Amino acid sequence: MTRSPLRPSDPRLDLEEARALDARNPLAGFREAFVVADPDEIYLDGNSLGRLPVRAREVVRAAVDEAWGERLIRSWGEGWWGAASRIGGRLAPLVGAGEDEVVVADQTSVNLYKLATAALEDRAPRTRIVSDALNFPSDLYVLEGVARRFGGRLEIVPAAADGVHADEAAIRAALDDDVALLSLSEVAFASGYRYDAARLTEAAHAAGALVLWDLSHAVGATPVDLAGWGADLAVGCTYKYVNGGPGAPAFAYVRRDLQDRLTQPIHGWFGQADPFDFGLAYAPAPGMARFTVGTPPVLSLLAMEPGVELLRDAGIGTVRDVSVALTEYLIALVDARLAPHGVEVVSPRDPERRGSHVTIAHPDAYRLTKAMIDAGVIPDYREGSGIRLGVAPLYVGFEDLWRAVERTEALLARGDHLAYDDARATVT
Amino acid sequence: MTRSPLRPSDPRLDLEEARALDARNPLAGFREAFVVADPDEIYLDGNSLGRLPVRAREVVRAAVDEAWGERLIRSWGEGWWGAASRIGGRLAPLVGAGEDEVVVADQTSVNLYKLATAALEDRAPRTRIVSDALNFPSDLYVLEGVARRFGGRLEIVPAAADGVHADEAAIRAALDDDVALLSLSEVAFASGYRYDAARLTEAAHAAGALVLWDLSHAVGATPVDLAGWGADLAVGCTYKYVNGGPGAPAFAYVRRDLQDRLTQPIHGWFGQADPFDFGLAYAPAPGMARFTVGTPPVLSLLAMEPGVELLRDAGIGTVRDVSVALTEYLIALVDARLAPHGVEVVSPRDPERRGSHVTIAHPDAYRLTKAMIDAGVIPDYREGSGIRLGVAPLYVGFEDLWRAVERTEALLARGDHLAYDDARATVT
Repeated sequence: MTRSPLRPSDPRLDLEEARALDARNPLAGFREAFVVADPDEIYLDGNSLGRLPVRAREVVRAAVDEAWGERLIRSWGEGWWGAASRIGGRLAPLVGAGEDEVVVADQTSVNLYKLATAALEDRAPRTRIVSDALNFPSDLYVLEGVARRFGGRLEIVPAAADGVHADEAAIRAALDDDVALLSLSEVAFASGYRYDAARLTEAAHAAGALVLWDLSHAVGATPVDLAGWGADLAVGCTYKYVNGGPGAPAFAYVRRDLQDRLTQPIHGWFGQADPFDFGLAYAPAPGMARFTVGTPPVLSLLAMEPGVELLRDAGIGTVRDVSVALTEYLIALVDARLAPHGVEVVSPRDPERRGSHVTIAHPDAYRLTKAMIDAGVIPDYREGSGIRLGVAPLYVGFEDLWRAVERTEALLARGDHLAYDDARATVT
Repeated sequence: MTRSPLRPSDPRLDLEEARALDARNPLAGFREAFVVADPDEIYLDGNSLGRLPVRAREVVRAAVDEAWGERLIRSWGEGWWGAASRIGGRLAPLVGAGEDEVVVADQTSVNLYKLATAALEDRAPRTRIVSDALNFPSDLYVLEGVARRFGGRLEIVPAAADGVHADEAAIRAALDDDVALLSLSEVAFASGYRYDAARLTEAAHAAGALVLWDLSHAVGATPVDLAGWGADLAVGCTYKYVNGGPGAPAFAYVRRDLQDRLTQPIHGWFGQADPFDFGLAYAPAPGMARFTVGTPPVLSLLAMEPGVELLRDAGIGTVRDVSVALTEYLIALVDARLAPHGVEVVSPRDPERRGSHVTIAHPDAYRLTKAMIDAGVIPDYREGSGIRLGVAPLYVGFEDLWRAVERTEALLARGDHLAYDDARATVT
């Protein structure tokens, strides 16, 4: 395998090299597709809220001024009706799915609830769900609630001893014949650990369980291959690397051959076979529509489409190549320049086992985060995990990473962070 | 009781009178707060999608360009976090609730599912839900799914023989000691029938059941008094008379003393006691927060606030007075000018038993709807129910109604509607 031109074998880690790498970056041109209000600010929180695509601004304006303001109710017949399926279909190739296997609907946790419940109904009398300690807590809350409702329980497999990597062997060992569902976040929100999804899916199937992947921290940054993995179910959020906007609706995936076998518990109008028949009895729609419930939040829904299109234009393979090159480069910079100041790389060092954010630790991580923000470097802080540096390949470049580390090194050297209050605010 | 100056005892039903009534209409000035792109078009579908408030356009622009585009993740700390509670609190007085009793979250059907499930858990071992045939079909689907999950069933009480009025005596008679929940739409979507909510709530309580009102066709047009009724639970949509925008998030109400007793089944991050603690076990938040799940669709959420504020400014009592005067006037016009052409008023004639839309029937209702739209009168058509004329008091005036009937009479007299295809399209 030839080494990528974006991954020099002997990195010099100086500004000139960063600029040379940017000059070779096949995604460099995509930055212009995003609103960058302050070019001096380095935004490393695309793993939490992606940047605004220029086109999304236009889409929302048209949706408000023209569709809502002028066309009013007629807009349902002029694009709103079916938008959730259409955009789901556009998103599908980003997760290795067919366009009839993905729909946009509700929020991630609601979709997780619907699909986990469907899975437990399907796998009865099995009642156990397996997940692990790296999963997003909200997912664990949802899964535990679902398992309990079926008289079962959620088994949370501990992480590896380092708290960073998953213990995939232990997960596989937990898959016995009482397990209905294995559900994990394909890229872990805290450490950025990336699972061997194909192998885990196979192991779950061998045990007779279904698999539900939460792709929230994976979609748009890593090559998700639901079909190749043989995955049954998936959900994911679209406001991170998909750049869909704050609280943009989530998506749900159900493998084609399972769609008409499974039913979800929230029987709404949009999931009904004939929503304009106004019959009094529910009959689930065929295909993915049955996994939807009600009228989608149209403005937030339409705002996410440009983000999906940008990723399709870029090609997820290229996105992944650049993501790996960027995170490798960032780790090398942290090791070289921040480690002497007590900063440690938390995320897995094997790029194959890492998503697109790099988590770092420091004894004073909370204050360091505040100081970084004031120095124009925007990461996020997660209690107990450290500082996450999100590397969104569509708009973060090598020079950005170089400058981010340069500024962080300088403030650590000066001790700027020591001037900040250590009391936790609710939200970063 | 003195007769309202908006309800002349001997209406002449001519254009001059309509203008005189508009001149006395205390809400006439609110029309300017909405975008009216085509002043010649008469929009009578505010019961389905309300008009765009001018202010909402500005709010969305700021949310996209400034908050998302410039402030990015920091916007969570600058207004997004807590917006769902804040806007819920602003909406609360419109439904006779305390500001800590309402939260904006998800879509109506998802909220109905959450609260109905919470009610059945609370009322165990009771497993039956009572509703009636006037309820929105989606509500019946949700309720039936919930009842079945608890091993119970949904009893759908038939409507009165006319198919227009509810049979409230039969509903009360259905409330026995196996009923966990009574759930109805306070204003029926098809006929516009308005229930005696206080009396039904009292009857349900006497039988030991909880009550869940769907306020979707009531909120913003009729004086909902959840506290006065003693209601337990309510949900409602905000894109109709609240003018919150297409698919705007819904709201949920839980009476204060029930909030910490009930738990809902979808255990998400936002409903957790300490969402930034990232603990692995779910503990429901105190108060209304526990009835939320995940990150709200921020653009759609913020877009709805101006509509709420406009209703607060108008005062719901005034809104109701004007609504009654307008619908009485519209019915008088239909009787006088459209009845000779085969049009019948379907909605209850007692304004006390009617919401803010007037449903009319005609043997050729579908084609008539199409012809009305082409004549610049926008109602909506519901298969099996007829044509709904939505009277949103903030922007529909007497002259609008006069012109709508004038145009409809003219096209019926000419037989314009006969030129249209009778094949049903999916969406109006």
